[in-house]
Amino acid sequence: MASPKFQGWLGKTPESVNGKMEWGEFEPKKWTEDDVDIEISHCGICGSDLHMLKSGWGPTPYPCVVGHEIVGRAVRVGNNVKHVKVGDRVGVGAQARSCQKSTCHECSNDMPSYCGNELINTYGSIYPKDEGKSYGGYADYNRTNGGFVVKIPDGLDSAVAAPMLCGGITMYSPLKQNGCGPGKTVGIVGVGGLGHFGVLFAKALGADRVVGISRKSDKRDDALKLGADEYIATGEEEDWETKHARTLDLIISTVSSEKMPLEGYLRLLKVKGTLIQVGAPDGGNLPRINAFTLLLSGIKIGGSAVGSPREISEMLQLAADKKIKSWVQERPLKDANQAIIDMEDGKARFRYVLVNENYGHH
Amino acid sequence: MASPKFQGWLGKTPESVNGKMEWGEFEPKKWTEDDVDIEISHCGICGSDLHMLKSGWGPTPYPCVVGHEIVGRAVRVGNNVKHVKVGDRVGVGAQARSCQKSTCHECSNDMPSYCGNELINTYGSIYPKDEGKSYGGYADYNRTNGGFVVKIPDGLDSAVAAPMLCGGITMYSPLKQNGCGPGKTVGIVGVGGLGHFGVLFAKALGADRVVGISRKSDKRDDALKLGADEYIATGEEEDWETKHARTLDLIISTVSSEKMPLEGYLRLLKVKGTLIQVGAPDGGNLPRINAFTLLLSGIKIGGSAVGSPREISEMLQLAADKKIKSWVQERPLKDANQAIIDMEDGKARFRYVLVNENYGHH
Repeated sequence: MASPKFQGWLGKTPESVNGKMEWGEFEPKKWTEDDVDIEISHCGICGSDLHMLKSGWGPTPYPCVVGHEIVGRAVRVGNNVKHVKVGDRVGVGAQARSCQKSTCHECSNDMPSYCGNELINTYGSIYPKDEGKSYGGYADYNRTNGGFVVKIPDGLDSAVAAPMLCGGITMYSPLKQNGCGPGKTVGIVGVGGLGHFGVLFAKALGADRVVGISRKSDKRDDALKLGADEYIATGEEEDWETKHARTLDLIISTVSSEKMPLEGYLRLLKVKGTLIQVGAPDGGNLPRINAFTLLLSGIKIGGSAVGSPREISEMLQLAADKKIKSWVQERPLKDANQAIIDMEDGKARFRYVLVNENYGHH
Repeated sequence: MASPKFQGWLGKTPESVNGKMEWGEFEPKKWTEDDVDIEISHCGICGSDLHMLKSGWGPTPYPCVVGHEIVGRAVRVGNNVKHVKVGDRVGVGAQARSCQKSTCHECSNDMPSYCGNELINTYGSIYPKDEGKSYGGYADYNRTNGGFVVKIPDGLDSAVAAPMLCGGITMYSPLKQNGCGPGKTVGIVGVGGLGHFGVLFAKALGADRVVGISRKSDKRDDALKLGADEYIATGEEEDWETKHARTLDLIISTVSSEKMPLEGYLRLLKVKGTLIQVGAPDGGNLPRINAFTLLLSGIKIGGSAVGSPREISEMLQLAADKKIKSWVQERPLKDANQAIIDMEDGKARFRYVLVNENYGHH
């Protein structure tokens, strides 16, 4: 089958983040028989999209099409791709390729998001050897390595599945890998695009008690509606650090402010508990940690970045089985510029999903 | 049996750390049937002893007898103590009591060193309810709660066992709890009183490869003699952070300088690796950690404090079985003042053990 025509919302300068993306054609990566072409029906809007549009993480290789929570239909499948066939409903998350070598410690141990040899993001990465650039999902079509294309289980709406592919897995992976389940008490810091998935998946994984943690009390109702058993407003509840000390086995923190009360969060951990940071301040500087805070409770602080395609599939199946609903607001793809403006303004409750009105009409 | 007469090296002021301890009588904690009196034959000198003598961790309740690596013979055993009988060779580490309640999460889960209700150190702690003070092992006798008295296995020299009771367990516990064993590569930062136990126990637990890490190369020979397979001199080897990047599953760091190259150590960890800090700078401030360092390798940093009596017994048995030899230099108890001066001067290679010339002559 021939390649379709690739069109999408092109960011051409850092100004594009202010609603100045332009619709146009782009040249996808060079086709190989390891790839899959996807006709895109849905694409979630992730905070990373805005960072990339405005060159927030170093210079972006413009033109750039962002979007890495892609759902659609496989329309061309390379001969080397065995788990997907043309017509399947599939998804792509934040990663488009790793080295996938059997000699790679990360790739051969289901940790391709940490591959030390080749990390290709779904958008804004340059492939080696003149293969071109990666372009994301604010578009009609996407081309991604089959190893990073997952099938969407029946029974899971595309609009619900889309934001799970980056936002969802960012929370699911550290929850799963750090023992979230029956008998455990789990805190989710930040109740927003990422945090709301934290509450949903912590409950779905069977945690005894899930505590939403945020600065103000205005997220309390949402947290409880999502399934949280309790809520802590760190900016309003006095003595929250001591009152709730040593009550949580695991905390996943989505906040990215350099001024977050990290020592306070750590005090909420039970002995031998773990806090996993998935947000990062610009520049990355965390508040200083006191060694005694770690020593005297035997606790750990770590980080986590998205998850593997295998984990994504596992998460989607759990979501389908437990009928988990992401909190999404659908926006037409044609209004993508307004949607990113609204996203930047913090209006999303909690994720926007672009719906492609061209889907099925090519 | 009546109580023996308790005499030891009393620190009466912060000046005592400069070789000014005075030999004299002291009143041990009030006897209960949960306690054991020990005639002390050996006591290791630990860095903590110096801190306590000079009020380095807040005001010390003088007079104080330090020493929490105590080995000797049980001479009086409370009726409620079942695992020890008079005449047994026993040891006491850094902790003398916790709440030991079945309702205590820490105590009922083999983590009494993190008990949130009652943490009594072997010296310098005040017992509740007029029970008195805790006094350590630079003395003829010690009285400690039976729950924190362990038997010393046959085949393990008392002088070898003594420094394991604090220095040894501080390294053994985080190694064991973080999966040190076959297939694992382990780094030990700081090759000294603590670090040398790290190398010994990492090898004994079956780690594939053990790497000694220190600032200068002057510890290289010792590290290799202890069993290390490799050595990194961070102050001398250029590009050590990148050259050895992602090579270690687990690092135990004994260094306590606020200027330690912590980011560099973290870069040595493989994806999903763990660094456990057992040393702490005065005041506790660790160098700042960059969130991306944690996120982009999925690694963790944590802390650990000593270990439980059960873990101590397990460690001592391993030491007996594998014929592990602490590197100790024996010093007569009567020369304790000179020994702490030499310890402060960094002359110990790697642990001093005070040998009580009065032992058996009371």
